[in-house]
Amino acid sequence: MVDGASQKQLFIGIDGGGTKCRATIYCAERGILGTGLGGPANPLHGLERTLESIMVSTQQALRDAGLSLQTVHTLVAGLGLAGVNLPTLYEQISEWQHPFKKMYLTTDLHTACIGAHEGEDGAVIITGTGSCGFACVNGESVNYGGHGFAQGDKGSGAWLGLEALKAVLLDLDGLGPHTQLSALFKLHFNTDSGMGIAEQMAGQPSSSYAKLARMVLDAADKGDHVANAIVKDGAHYISMMAKRLLEVNPPRLSMIGGLAQPLQKWLDVDVAKKVQHPKQPPELGAVYFAQQSLANEQQKVAN
Amino acid sequence: MVDGASQKQLFIGIDGGGTKCRATIYCAERGILGTGLGGPANPLHGLERTLESIMVSTQQALRDAGLSLQTVHTLVAGLGLAGVNLPTLYEQISEWQHPFKKMYLTTDLHTACIGAHEGEDGAVIITGTGSCGFACVNGESVNYGGHGFAQGDKGSGAWLGLEALKAVLLDLDGLGPHTQLSALFKLHFNTDSGMGIAEQMAGQPSSSYAKLARMVLDAADKGDHVANAIVKDGAHYISMMAKRLLEVNPPRLSMIGGLAQPLQKWLDVDVAKKVQHPKQPPELGAVYFAQQSLANEQQKVAN
Repeated sequence: MVDGASQKQLFIGIDGGGTKCRATIYCAERGILGTGLGGPANPLHGLERTLESIMVSTQQALRDAGLSLQTVHTLVAGLGLAGVNLPTLYEQISEWQHPFKKMYLTTDLHTACIGAHEGEDGAVIITGTGSCGFACVNGESVNYGGHGFAQGDKGSGAWLGLEALKAVLLDLDGLGPHTQLSALFKLHFNTDSGMGIAEQMAGQPSSSYAKLARMVLDAADKGDHVANAIVKDGAHYISMMAKRLLEVNPPRLSMIGGLAQPLQKWLDVDVAKKVQHPKQPPELGAVYFAQQSLANEQQKVAN
Repeated sequence: MVDGASQKQLFIGIDGGGTKCRATIYCAERGILGTGLGGPANPLHGLERTLESIMVSTQQALRDAGLSLQTVHTLVAGLGLAGVNLPTLYEQISEWQHPFKKMYLTTDLHTACIGAHEGEDGAVIITGTGSCGFACVNGESVNYGGHGFAQGDKGSGAWLGLEALKAVLLDLDGLGPHTQLSALFKLHFNTDSGMGIAEQMAGQPSSSYAKLARMVLDAADKGDHVANAIVKDGAHYISMMAKRLLEVNPPRLSMIGGLAQPLQKWLDVDVAKKVQHPKQPPELGAVYFAQQSLANEQQKVAN
């Protein structure tokens, strides 16, 4: 399938999301050579920051692999980035004067799906800082959600955090039901006033809201009615999304992201039963994507 | 009460909110001399922009009054600004090297209340781009809401727009109930795809969301269930806020802002009955505030 040259070709798979960016350097002959971790890489929240996070994770992966930083120019890169489902962001990243030998760009959903099913057809739901669903079956793909914070991303960490914050501000004003979340948030933000909390969260990116999600899940577990209703509402949306994805008959369905595990028990039972462990992480999906894209390109040239 | 000098003293009252900034030049002897209008002036969404809008409205008011732009240095200014309930924003605006003879700063809620009741005690609810409630009775004040978009401001124009957008994105994904808003939004954004709509609204300020509110109110009027539920939920919050404000027995209660009139018929009947027309606009409240603040200061010096 792959000739000698391809066996030695170095690939880098990069998975960029709202809170972090992971990179993995891989070659067919020797497997995974090194990994790196960078900061937020969702171009919707800042193009500069995204490119910086990509480079930080790339350089870490090169060092981890014992390779010189100059080796970056020999890497064939696969990038799966949140936000590039939006056409203008896809174009902006594509126009980047990147340091790689070649760069192939797609959504984090696509690379996550390729990774989860080791390059085979399947469906994935990502619930981390944001939320979205994707299925690829017989060359056709469908996707749901992924509309970004605060207008979409229901059931995500940022959504849980925002809904909880709204509930706490209502409670502290005496304009909504009491919730244990208020005491937890007062402690977390080190202030007794709703305005003090609101001020600290004003203008914060979705990743800051996602940091509040753990408190919401914990309070829901402990039976707080408000937190319980929020988590149930978010999980119901994720269940509905799973059902829509299953309509195209994907061979497998996986859930990925920081919320995948904690949300599992809140899903509809028939959905939860169908969720299977992802076989490989999204950054390896990005490597597969780069390999497949390079092979397709070489085949086109050959024909 | 006022001596000859005070009778001739020029005041400027400035009311700054999420979408526009109004200025009125006033003197006791001759009444209103001129008015001006500037752009958004909510420092939470940009300090620079706010100061620019204040200056634009001030210069317009000076021109309207037939005064030279140099006259700005003789004006005693009263500023009622959204967002300055947050202590850091209050400080930032206070530290501004303003061009006025004197500047007195308070919240837009406070000046709206002073204006609505011509300097007397009372309560106001502002529902424009944002939402909040304020009452001033016997020197004590209480306030509710005003926590900013998207974590607070329930029942406001921006909130109506965001909730409608969320509902439309769910509908277009087949993950929420059908709503007439979807067709209206597709037309408005000139795209058939949820992602196309999401992209146009990504990162937009609250004022952009508030521009969608009219469509939501219209759809609710026409019996669309989704729009109806959104407007009812928002109006219920405003009714609850009014009831909390009425607990401190304000002599009058007024509603102000672009949503005050359209929301009226959605309020609880017992609340709607108590709402009285504001006597003067917020920018005149800002003039009263400047007059009162100057008089208090002069009295302190005299004692």
